[in-house]
Amino acid sequence: MSDSVRRGTDRASRLARAAALSGISGKVCPADLATRLLEAIIESGDRVTIEGDNQKQADFLASALAKVDPARVHDLHMVQSVLALPDHLAVFERGIANRLDFSFAGPQSRKLAELVATNAVRIGAIHTYLELYARMLVDLTPQVALVVADKADREGNLYTGPNTEDTPTITEATAFRGGVVVAQVNEVVDRLPRVDIPGDWVDVVVPSPKPYLIDPLFTRDPAKIRNENVLMAMMAITAVYEPYQVQRLNHGIGYATAAIELMLPTFAAQRGLKGKIARHFVLNPHPTLIPAIEAGFVDSVYCFGSELGMERYVSNRADIFPVGADGNLRSNRALAQVAGQYACDLFVGATLQIDAQGNSSTATKGRITGFGGAPNMGADPRGRRHDSPAWLRAGQEAGESLRGRKLVVQMVQTHQPNGAPSFVERLDAFDLAASAGFALPPVMIHGDDVTHVVTERGVANLLRCRSMQEREAALRAVAGDTEFGRRQSPETSDALRRRGIVMFPSDLGIDVSSATRDRLAAQTIDDLVTASGGLYVPPAKFRPATVPAVEIRS
Amino acid sequence: MSDSVRRGTDRASRLARAAALSGISGKVCPADLATRLLEAIIESGDRVTIEGDNQKQADFLASALAKVDPARVHDLHMVQSVLALPDHLAVFERGIANRLDFSFAGPQSRKLAELVATNAVRIGAIHTYLELYARMLVDLTPQVALVVADKADREGNLYTGPNTEDTPTITEATAFRGGVVVAQVNEVVDRLPRVDIPGDWVDVVVPSPKPYLIDPLFTRDPAKIRNENVLMAMMAITAVYEPYQVQRLNHGIGYATAAIELMLPTFAAQRGLKGKIARHFVLNPHPTLIPAIEAGFVDSVYCFGSELGMERYVSNRADIFPVGADGNLRSNRALAQVAGQYACDLFVGATLQIDAQGNSSTATKGRITGFGGAPNMGADPRGRRHDSPAWLRAGQEAGESLRGRKLVVQMVQTHQPNGAPSFVERLDAFDLAASAGFALPPVMIHGDDVTHVVTERGVANLLRCRSMQEREAALRAVAGDTEFGRRQSPETSDALRRRGIVMFPSDLGIDVSSATRDRLAAQTIDDLVTASGGLYVPPAKFRPATVPAVEIRS
Repeated sequence: MSDSVRRGTDRASRLARAAALSGISGKVCPADLATRLLEAIIESGDRVTIEGDNQKQADFLASALAKVDPARVHDLHMVQSVLALPDHLAVFERGIANRLDFSFAGPQSRKLAELVATNAVRIGAIHTYLELYARMLVDLTPQVALVVADKADREGNLYTGPNTEDTPTITEATAFRGGVVVAQVNEVVDRLPRVDIPGDWVDVVVPSPKPYLIDPLFTRDPAKIRNENVLMAMMAITAVYEPYQVQRLNHGIGYATAAIELMLPTFAAQRGLKGKIARHFVLNPHPTLIPAIEAGFVDSVYCFGSELGMERYVSNRADIFPVGADGNLRSNRALAQVAGQYACDLFVGATLQIDAQGNSSTATKGRITGFGGAPNMGADPRGRRHDSPAWLRAGQEAGESLRGRKLVVQMVQTHQPNGAPSFVERLDAFDLAASAGFALPPVMIHGDDVTHVVTERGVANLLRCRSMQEREAALRAVAGDTEFGRRQSPETSDALRRRGIVMFPSDLGIDVSSATRDRLAAQTIDDLVTASGGLYVPPAKFRPATVPAVEIRS
Repeated sequence: MSDSVRRGTDRASRLARAAALSGISGKVCPADLATRLLEAIIESGDRVTIEGDNQKQADFLASALAKVDPARVHDLHMVQSVLALPDHLAVFERGIANRLDFSFAGPQSRKLAELVATNAVRIGAIHTYLELYARMLVDLTPQVALVVADKADREGNLYTGPNTEDTPTITEATAFRGGVVVAQVNEVVDRLPRVDIPGDWVDVVVPSPKPYLIDPLFTRDPAKIRNENVLMAMMAITAVYEPYQVQRLNHGIGYATAAIELMLPTFAAQRGLKGKIARHFVLNPHPTLIPAIEAGFVDSVYCFGSELGMERYVSNRADIFPVGADGNLRSNRALAQVAGQYACDLFVGATLQIDAQGNSSTATKGRITGFGGAPNMGADPRGRRHDSPAWLRAGQEAGESLRGRKLVVQMVQTHQPNGAPSFVERLDAFDLAASAGFALPPVMIHGDDVTHVVTERGVANLLRCRSMQEREAALRAVAGDTEFGRRQSPETSDALRRRGIVMFPSDLGIDVSSATRDRLAAQTIDDLVTASGGLYVPPAKFRPATVPAVEIRS
């Protein structure tokens, strides 16, 4: 029997075992059989992927997997982009799985570190999202994928709704390697609004007892933006967006970037920048983008996923967002990562720590967080060949003669909300690497990829630094009242200001006292709702308690 | 009327104009109406993409577009990955289109340069493939896409067969931006073998009068591999694959890499490298890979597209290739480019010219060729975070402390087949940039991304060079009997050999006289057919005239 026949036989055996379960009808498996289904199709030692995106989660299948009998199914190798749920770790605690390749473990980062310490989990590597998808196509191909969608029909066609995210990529990687694809759906219907994943690629559909979990992770309440964020946003616009004419960009999810989004129609418009900057975003539908869209500042937004509450607004702005003939957003995390990498001139991110070389990391001792998409978008894509004014100017400043440079901006206050300094001589990531046995420390963005660092004290333009020493001095100059910043004399910093390497607010013509919240185009979530013409429907957690919630029914 | 409504109305108007053509039935448009269809749905000034892949071509739709009335449809902005057909340029000659963003124009490179010189074409930029897809999602979103597939059903569902290539990406970029997608298909059937593109994403299907054009671009006849190629392959295996333990890789399409593929089961196996190198390829189904696959050397191949004649073999080796439940390959060029970028430790390419800094280009004066996928895979992906022995060792040799390096190998004979030296002091690309008005010269692979250069004279390991001068000396050392090479004394080259920067065959334990064609696992196309168990069916052009062609019918 050839390997080929073996693989076909293997898949057929798995599906035959599933079909033998009484209660399965065609491709539809009742929810109460989910764990038995997984015991039938998963074999010990398999690589299994559970769809765990930034937002939506295959939570029912994750819990079904956590309940399989470890005597029957064990030594699984989990390959998944996000570890968000307790059940994602329960499979390791229960001895069902023991290997892990992943991208992000924000909410489970401490627990993951504990499981690594007790050898319950062996981590292959921490990847950026796009890198993990790449390996799922090459050497981490899954035998079984557990994915999630809004609706399915009886042929297994899937409708994801606006949060398409990883589903097409994970499904393709599995279905075309002889793997088995199981989809949890909120409902099975006769006719889908549109087909996002062809039924040929899906083997089993499980209607979940309750809708899948989804979190509004990209919503920032304008009420929580502080004057410091406004100041940093003014500096970023003045020192980066305007001089480099940044038209295509990607933002992280901090309050500093939310402030930028809310100051496009105010501060930036007053500077005459409408139509000149921030025209094309690669970004989830951030509610804080609504005023800029309504002001005609933004031409297009391409999306990794959607954002809860933004569905109607997005559908109404099909001129801005990727919307299908059915009227709903189609997002795609893999393609958005590609777009963020190759079609954007600027990435703005945030970090917990940044060191003297400009390396940054969100990893701290006792927490294995992972990187998400930041390394992919926060690095110079050296395969890029098309030019733009932003890219050419950045390259020229860096002394490049044959190529441009991507702008990679870190916006970070000199101290974290808990009072810890953001600037450190040594990243905690180095200690984490030593304790977890990683070959290299988990650096999120490398210092030599960062072009600008913006703090509430000023902007360091690292493109103009010609040595490691100069880079370090530029960082100390904007590190403010931290031990890291105090190590440098004001005279040294002033010398860098004269050379345009460091810019304080006054160097940019910004009066610090004018950096106030009233510059924001929206002060509250309610303002965003108003700006959207009532189309944005904020999730309950973002609604002020004093306002009667719309969905209260008698 | 909001922009959103406008976009919806716009799409609806285009489709209404199409539906009004008598002869259109549902989504199916007869071939003889194709040009009128395009006149109905395309508006002057539109961005239009014609699917032109490496292999398959939407040739019928390209010819229909070239026939539209320029008085009705003009000023089009063509966005397409490959310009392969005369009709791809006819739209410019006829005044239908005047702007172009593209990736590769191999067969039409000279004509394209002429049209640029007469201002009939304004080039936006030359992109790598992945970069062009990225921009199609962001700022080069098409209003109309003309794609190609094997079969459609009446709902517009598409079956691409093994050559899926760009179809899903182009279609997604268009369908979810209010654009109109037209697919040329070889036949309309009642039931597809599988659905590659959901019908919801496709507006019109045109059965083409004859099957779409497809070329076997990735077939290299073993009979044309020369002893020099064998020698270079032996050096590459000995100096790169073996010491770096390269397991995941991508090959270009030259005879040197074909020689490597054919020497895995012979030379590499004799060195005990089976299971240690070249296990996972990101590669089209090169026929020259058959012996290595049959020898059990290769674990998996992920594919950009397919290769004519390899269909049955690939279907039979579903354990190696990405094959669906229907038994046929599903390729995906965008995802394969991602896999090549992020999941491979090694890229091996070839070039026409390489300069003193190691920059290489296939652009020469009077020819605007473009880059294809090489810049994407032939660059260090700085967003990569997972490690491997190959990546770590390359990083260490380069003096990196926080990351590894991708291995990027250029295999180039010191002289091109036409006798021109491959090593030059200055790339023709510089002159081309000046004459075409490009901001930067079209460098395919930048010198600082290249890690090794292999010629028939030796191997230069650029990772170990610590200055531009050292890099230049290493290149001159392997440039052989060219003016470029003769500028350096043998003593200088010998000093580099002692430091392990330059390796001549003897330094690698290779007896040049032993580098002969009999080391190849297959000497002819016929040998490949035999190795495939008769499953590989070479296209006619690769069949020796003395052997009766199978497809001759009475």
